[in-house]
Amino acid sequence: MSYAQRKIKQEIIIPPYEARSAVLKPGEELVIIDVDGKQVGDFVCFNKQDPKEFVSPVHMRASLSSIRLQVGDPLYSNRRRPLMTFAEDTVGKHDFFFPACDYFRYKVDYDSDDHPNCHDNLKLALEMYGLGGEPVPDPINLFMNNVLNDLGDYEINEPLSKPGDFVRLKALEEVVIACSTCSQDMAPVNGWKVTSLKMQIMEAN
Amino acid sequence: MSYAQRKIKQEIIIPPYEARSAVLKPGEELVIIDVDGKQVGDFVCFNKQDPKEFVSPVHMRASLSSIRLQVGDPLYSNRRRPLMTFAEDTVGKHDFFFPACDYFRYKVDYDSDDHPNCHDNLKLALEMYGLGGEPVPDPINLFMNNVLNDLGDYEINEPLSKPGDFVRLKALEEVVIACSTCSQDMAPVNGWKVTSLKMQIMEAN
Repeated sequence: MSYAQRKIKQEIIIPPYEARSAVLKPGEELVIIDVDGKQVGDFVCFNKQDPKEFVSPVHMRASLSSIRLQVGDPLYSNRRRPLMTFAEDTVGKHDFFFPACDYFRYKVDYDSDDHPNCHDNLKLALEMYGLGGEPVPDPINLFMNNVLNDLGDYEINEPLSKPGDFVRLKALEEVVIACSTCSQDMAPVNGWKVTSLKMQIMEAN
Repeated sequence: MSYAQRKIKQEIIIPPYEARSAVLKPGEELVIIDVDGKQVGDFVCFNKQDPKEFVSPVHMRASLSSIRLQVGDPLYSNRRRPLMTFAEDTVGKHDFFFPACDYFRYKVDYDSDDHPNCHDNLKLALEMYGLGGEPVPDPINLFMNNVLNDLGDYEINEPLSKPGDFVRLKALEEVVIACSTCSQDMAPVNGWKVTSLKMQIMEAN
């Protein structure tokens, strides 16, 4: 059954500089839509039954033998088990080797003490599920456009996502997910500004 | 002053399938020698005064804008501050995007319940400093030879290190370090076997 034919169970707007969380049951799907385009979403996912297990980019890189994310890839946990699958993607470029922006990013690089940051956005959004303890796991940075050169150095360019582009993730276990609108507005990572994302949770088949 | 002219304060052999830890004061240097060649060392480093701060490969990739490690690079912490510098290197190829091998690696991929693994080796070696809590931070994998292709997929090849090759790291803060002889003996990562590493701690100038 295609995405368009499924029934939307819940719709959540993630405002700029904030994060939102939700629960998905096995078989349910999460669509994350880049409403205005060029907006990165920092995404984390926990096994709801045992939140010490979570999607882990460093273990994904090992299990996938890759630093690119492709349709069909499982999202592996720190126990090397898939918690979700990357089921659909209208963009084709994402990141899973970069950290969430955090207090120290803005303090060290911009001497700012109070800039919103994805780490703390996610932490706050996860508190309702008792999962706000530090540190928040490393995120998958949806729509983030890091371009590597042959030497292994890279530049962060503006995302390739256009308004309405989306990814679709399918839950394999009962999971708690959270996503933050990446709060970096002083670099190309989100096209020099921060805009909303929209999450839709689709009922299982 | 060159490495050869410095005074060795302490010498530690890391046997196959084990890890060892040590403390360095600011200005002291750590030389890690690949005794027989082709042996990866999984390396972690904590700020001794505040062990919630530790060298963090994901933050290093952000602060260095790179996934390669070069002489002169600071080893950045999860607070985006340098705890050590990568001062000398006779090999030129290392990894800092791959996880430590762990229980789940051997259980999932080899159905083995009791294979030695770097995560638990490091955990045990860190206990003497009260730092053995899980999870052990992601390591820098010294001498590991992951070869990326243009698409972002990679193969793990045998290390380029020959007998006696080494890296030298300089402490900028008082640090607790630990290093494990990577315990993967069923893949090319260590040349299909596990051998010793040697650590030398050199007095400050």
